[in-house]
Amino acid sequence: MSSGEDDLIARYFRPLAQSPGALGLIDDAALIESNGEDLVVTTDAIVEGVHFLPDDPPDSVARKALRVNLSDLVAKGATPAGFVLTLALREVRENWMAPFAAALGDDATRFGCPLLGGDTVSTPGPSMISITAFGRVPRGTMVRRDRARAGECVVVSGSIGDAALGLAILQGRAGRWDGSDAAAEAMVERYRVPQPRLMLAPAVRQFASAAMDVSDGLMGDLAKLCAASGVTARIEAEAIPFSPPARTWLGGDPERIATLVAGGDDYEVLCTVPENQLSAFIAAATLAEVPVSTIGRIGAGTETVQLLDGNGREIVLPRLSFSHF
Amino acid sequence: MSSGEDDLIARYFRPLAQSPGALGLIDDAALIESNGEDLVVTTDAIVEGVHFLPDDPPDSVARKALRVNLSDLVAKGATPAGFVLTLALREVRENWMAPFAAALGDDATRFGCPLLGGDTVSTPGPSMISITAFGRVPRGTMVRRDRARAGECVVVSGSIGDAALGLAILQGRAGRWDGSDAAAEAMVERYRVPQPRLMLAPAVRQFASAAMDVSDGLMGDLAKLCAASGVTARIEAEAIPFSPPARTWLGGDPERIATLVAGGDDYEVLCTVPENQLSAFIAAATLAEVPVSTIGRIGAGTETVQLLDGNGREIVLPRLSFSHF
Repeated sequence: MSSGEDDLIARYFRPLAQSPGALGLIDDAALIESNGEDLVVTTDAIVEGVHFLPDDPPDSVARKALRVNLSDLVAKGATPAGFVLTLALREVRENWMAPFAAALGDDATRFGCPLLGGDTVSTPGPSMISITAFGRVPRGTMVRRDRARAGECVVVSGSIGDAALGLAILQGRAGRWDGSDAAAEAMVERYRVPQPRLMLAPAVRQFASAAMDVSDGLMGDLAKLCAASGVTARIEAEAIPFSPPARTWLGGDPERIATLVAGGDDYEVLCTVPENQLSAFIAAATLAEVPVSTIGRIGAGTETVQLLDGNGREIVLPRLSFSHF
Repeated sequence: MSSGEDDLIARYFRPLAQSPGALGLIDDAALIESNGEDLVVTTDAIVEGVHFLPDDPPDSVARKALRVNLSDLVAKGATPAGFVLTLALREVRENWMAPFAAALGDDATRFGCPLLGGDTVSTPGPSMISITAFGRVPRGTMVRRDRARAGECVVVSGSIGDAALGLAILQGRAGRWDGSDAAAEAMVERYRVPQPRLMLAPAVRQFASAAMDVSDGLMGDLAKLCAASGVTARIEAEAIPFSPPARTWLGGDPERIATLVAGGDDYEVLCTVPENQLSAFIAAATLAEVPVSTIGRIGAGTETVQLLDGNGREIVLPRLSFSHF
């Protein structure tokens, strides 16, 4: 830590670090006191020019950096406990740092996930924000990815594909559609600022056999969950929850479905629920005010996951998920 | 996570993730099971071109990335419990990744600090390695930075300034001295591969009132510890443990002392010990085979920390620590 870093911390981050475990950010370490629960740890980094654009609003960059991690915690059934931040900056600009730190603090308060510590380094290259977030679960109750069993229902929260459509709009790849400017703006917002489904965590913990968040595309992430569990799945395209704007966009060209189901950045919860627990899960989700949809079923075997149209015919996708590499 | 990232993880990092909490790296999250102890969390990032050089050996880059974090844990009195890794890479080269991952795995085993999870992202800019490490301490026993009291002894482990001298040698700033090539190489090695003092952690936890690791220069880090504690300190230059090569280098030019005591990258433990605990601390350190030296004393007041020569005169330093900003 240098004196320049000290100033940066004092000015922008100490006000955010009100949690006792942060020790006022004067220490090299943070403290997570034991309360007898297990700790779930997740880490996600976003890079300028790769995961966010240089002219993206700094407040949305901050929110996305934290929320992609919160999304992971939710899918594990965990309650947020705090996070540490690594910030690699090319330069420290007041008009970027101030809204970045303010939005980060706002989200930390909103989601009950306080800043505990971190490291700030200079870089000659693109800026990067890496967050490691912590959540708590009662001992032995973390929901894993590799526990899906044949016959279970595949359930997803919220709507799928909005963020991918938003990115396509931003990049001029969306093509013609009848959506309004407001609808386009809403899709872009879904891309820029994910909505982690925190209220769904207890229901996931109680009823889901396996879960993960959808970050790289529904079908690709489902394929990962199935591979980890040694099973396969069939998904009904007509059961996938598309928002009205996404549905309108899709209507014009059925080939567009790949963008929505393999596009990434949804940050919804994807989970498997035993059939005899499904109604209880849906009731708990409804109580938590998180919409959930049953979109298919886990099957025995390890064939590739399938997407089926209304006539039971497979819709072959050119790829299952988004890749940065 | 993308399929390219999946391959990278499967090939290089899954073999390292043998800890049950890593869940084989197939999940988005790692699990740290509660054993009733508090968790100490520390995070440090190193950037290519800033904290390591593009042609530094990849194995030493891996070791440094992990060890700077272990050094923080030791200074808090913690026993390593695991780490998560964020790797931002410009390109994936087999002849860099293989020795990097092998050395990381070797150190993880050596220090009992297993890989639990992480994130791998591509970057168009310099590579960066960010590690968040976890340690355990019995409840309520983490050693903080802000608990030093007037009258206590200032103690440091190992030797000070070797790494700074090594960096000066690497950068052609060391000037003339009578050291051998082997001595120069040893100094460079101290810069490249820190030696975290893991065996000292129990003694620090038992006897130190306040502690931190020396990463940005002895005098500057001591100033931070004193500022956090609301005290000051006087250090006897003649009591500072310099290695034989550093002493030889220093002998030629007394002005060189600033490089050694304000140069950074020592990764030794700096702590304060009440006088009536000092002999017990030294005995415990000796048992742990970690050399420690008493170099000065904490004083009341908040004046700047002072470095004194053999005649009690202040040695004024142009700066107290190394700054990347």
